[in-house]
Amino acid sequence: MFPTDPISNLATLIRCPSVTPAEGGALRALEAMLAPLGFRVDRVVAKEAGTPDVENLYARVGSEGPHLMFAGHTDVVPVGDEAAWSHGPFSAEIANGEMYGRGAVDMKGGIACFVAAVARHVEKHGPPKGSISLLITGDEEGPAINGTSKLLEWAAAKGERWDACLVGEPTNPDQLGDMIKIGRRGSLSGRITVHGVQGHAAYPHLADNPVRGILQLTAALMHPAFDQGTQDFQPSNLEVTTIDVGNSAVNVIPAKASAAFNIRFNDGWTAESLMAEIVARLDRAAKDGTLRPGRAPVKYEIVWNERPSQVFLTRDDALVESLSGAVEAVIGRRPQLSTTGGTSDARFIKDYCPVVEFGLVGRTMHMVDERVAVDELETLTEIYGSFIARWFRHAVA
Amino acid sequence: MFPTDPISNLATLIRCPSVTPAEGGALRALEAMLAPLGFRVDRVVAKEAGTPDVENLYARVGSEGPHLMFAGHTDVVPVGDEAAWSHGPFSAEIANGEMYGRGAVDMKGGIACFVAAVARHVEKHGPPKGSISLLITGDEEGPAINGTSKLLEWAAAKGERWDACLVGEPTNPDQLGDMIKIGRRGSLSGRITVHGVQGHAAYPHLADNPVRGILQLTAALMHPAFDQGTQDFQPSNLEVTTIDVGNSAVNVIPAKASAAFNIRFNDGWTAESLMAEIVARLDRAAKDGTLRPGRAPVKYEIVWNERPSQVFLTRDDALVESLSGAVEAVIGRRPQLSTTGGTSDARFIKDYCPVVEFGLVGRTMHMVDERVAVDELETLTEIYGSFIARWFRHAVA
Repeated sequence: MFPTDPISNLATLIRCPSVTPAEGGALRALEAMLAPLGFRVDRVVAKEAGTPDVENLYARVGSEGPHLMFAGHTDVVPVGDEAAWSHGPFSAEIANGEMYGRGAVDMKGGIACFVAAVARHVEKHGPPKGSISLLITGDEEGPAINGTSKLLEWAAAKGERWDACLVGEPTNPDQLGDMIKIGRRGSLSGRITVHGVQGHAAYPHLADNPVRGILQLTAALMHPAFDQGTQDFQPSNLEVTTIDVGNSAVNVIPAKASAAFNIRFNDGWTAESLMAEIVARLDRAAKDGTLRPGRAPVKYEIVWNERPSQVFLTRDDALVESLSGAVEAVIGRRPQLSTTGGTSDARFIKDYCPVVEFGLVGRTMHMVDERVAVDELETLTEIYGSFIARWFRHAVA
Repeated sequence: MFPTDPISNLATLIRCPSVTPAEGGALRALEAMLAPLGFRVDRVVAKEAGTPDVENLYARVGSEGPHLMFAGHTDVVPVGDEAAWSHGPFSAEIANGEMYGRGAVDMKGGIACFVAAVARHVEKHGPPKGSISLLITGDEEGPAINGTSKLLEWAAAKGERWDACLVGEPTNPDQLGDMIKIGRRGSLSGRITVHGVQGHAAYPHLADNPVRGILQLTAALMHPAFDQGTQDFQPSNLEVTTIDVGNSAVNVIPAKASAAFNIRFNDGWTAESLMAEIVARLDRAAKDGTLRPGRAPVKYEIVWNERPSQVFLTRDDALVESLSGAVEAVIGRRPQLSTTGGTSDARFIKDYCPVVEFGLVGRTMHMVDERVAVDELETLTEIYGSFIARWFRHAVA
């Protein structure tokens, strides 16, 4: 029996309680769907000190090029308040044409549809003219240390090479077919600590209030804007996500203040050029005397979070056009080519091959009552099927 | 035996371990010194829900006016690292001409000298031509709820009226005779909370980062300066003592941010006029779009700490001149008339009568190895004696 029905595929996957880092039976179920289609399946356990071991899956059918990868994850976020769900979060119950369950759209639904599309393709045409692989992690919603990044390294080390990748994350804000992601902004985080001199609030000249310093530094990060956006990207945006002093004594000037920030940056920057700009802004602001008249420059240190995400933009016309054309063929309108939103595992894949992202409508992801219209599962399966046919036609030609 | 020796008086008081709120025998010892001088002594226990009961003392000799009050406290701050003391903190040991002990300068020393000065006065001249009272609390270093404020209310309720008050707190920065305090700045504290909208750092338009708001509001409190100072006072000064968000997720825009501040203000303001100015600044800053372009005004709330201290300045020439003249007569130079520093219990007394403050050198107060030069105890006793004689001469004339 080929797994040609995305609704049945998704019900099977939802019933596996694969909350990160638990495998929950989801990869085993996926392996059982892929084996009849001729996929060779590897289950790869990734380990790293200080993080839980995570199971991942790599499956390939065919041994020649061109080679198309589909990437995604079977792990899901926690269910939250289980009592608040209308239907059990691992029940896959259907009500009013919608299937309920954690991961319905993020992103067991995308996997269910892609597997159905491949099954239909193999049923109709036999094995693909080239190779199709699935790179599926169990660590996308967690620390993402033992997931896609390591799985790519593992596969590349044993000689795997890919010509293109489709990530099946939910990309549509409202309606299926709204939006393809053809790139992502980069993401860079850091923490600033300002060292002052503790003292009594009545004797400020004997102290140096680090709150004044942290205000100057953080304000300089927020204003002026880093840029006005580029042709393909929104303006870069920085948010100061926390400021913490933790001083409960109202008469005491504290010794230390710290702030953390995150910036989403466009292709006018690299993580490195942005770090340099941020340090330049901080150094200038440290010397500003507005809030600290007559004082020496603010003493601060900055610690960058490890592993910033670099910005990327996919310029592979065949890949983008195969996907846009498939959406148009099935839905009747062309999707928007977007680079908005957060990061995804595409940030790792882009170092190996061109990558685009398209999946279900994300509206209910991470919420109580995450659910998907069963009609949309059929539609997405048709789009994925059309994409596979178009991409191989382009790539073989 | 009249308690005419300040060194002996102080040793007796230091040996009573009267760390707030413990009486530690200190008020009992003081009562024993005052009774032979003709003082009628009341021991008043003040109570308030949520705070420890505190013992206080009120003693008066004489029944007519003019009426001079001496105010102070026998409670002391904790000893800190006892092992680090060169001599036991309750030992009153003398080494190299200095007596060691918690409270030596803050302010059992001031009490010891005033009692000695009164004893010498009574020994030489008999009872004062008028009345002298001591208003001594055991709750100055603690919450100050069951201390001077309640003791004044209690005494006033039973008909006590005063013409002038001397507070014996350590007022001299470096040398005995440096500085008399003739007023104090006011102190006002508050906490601002900004309510934003939580969200993902990659979708700032769907969120409203309260860190932007709290930065705008707190910056407006710090700049520009509230004033340039007045004839008798330093410029008012505001310190933001803490900013807290407590968001540990680097990808999340938080929902709420809060900040606390304390302002020391001069006689250009009352607590009320300053509250109005602060709210006006906050309301203006809330509408500023620099860090929040295109957004509705910042939503904030402000909570004022209860019981601000009002600013005061003592304009009683006879009182100030009696004290300045006494210092000059004993030391050979006139003290600076100052309004600097923190608040003191004089903020309560000023509502009942003119008040000035003069005591020992404060350098070692609250520190390990708090100590006083025994020579200074004799000098301060002479100054207090001269002050008593001068003030009664002025007041009776």
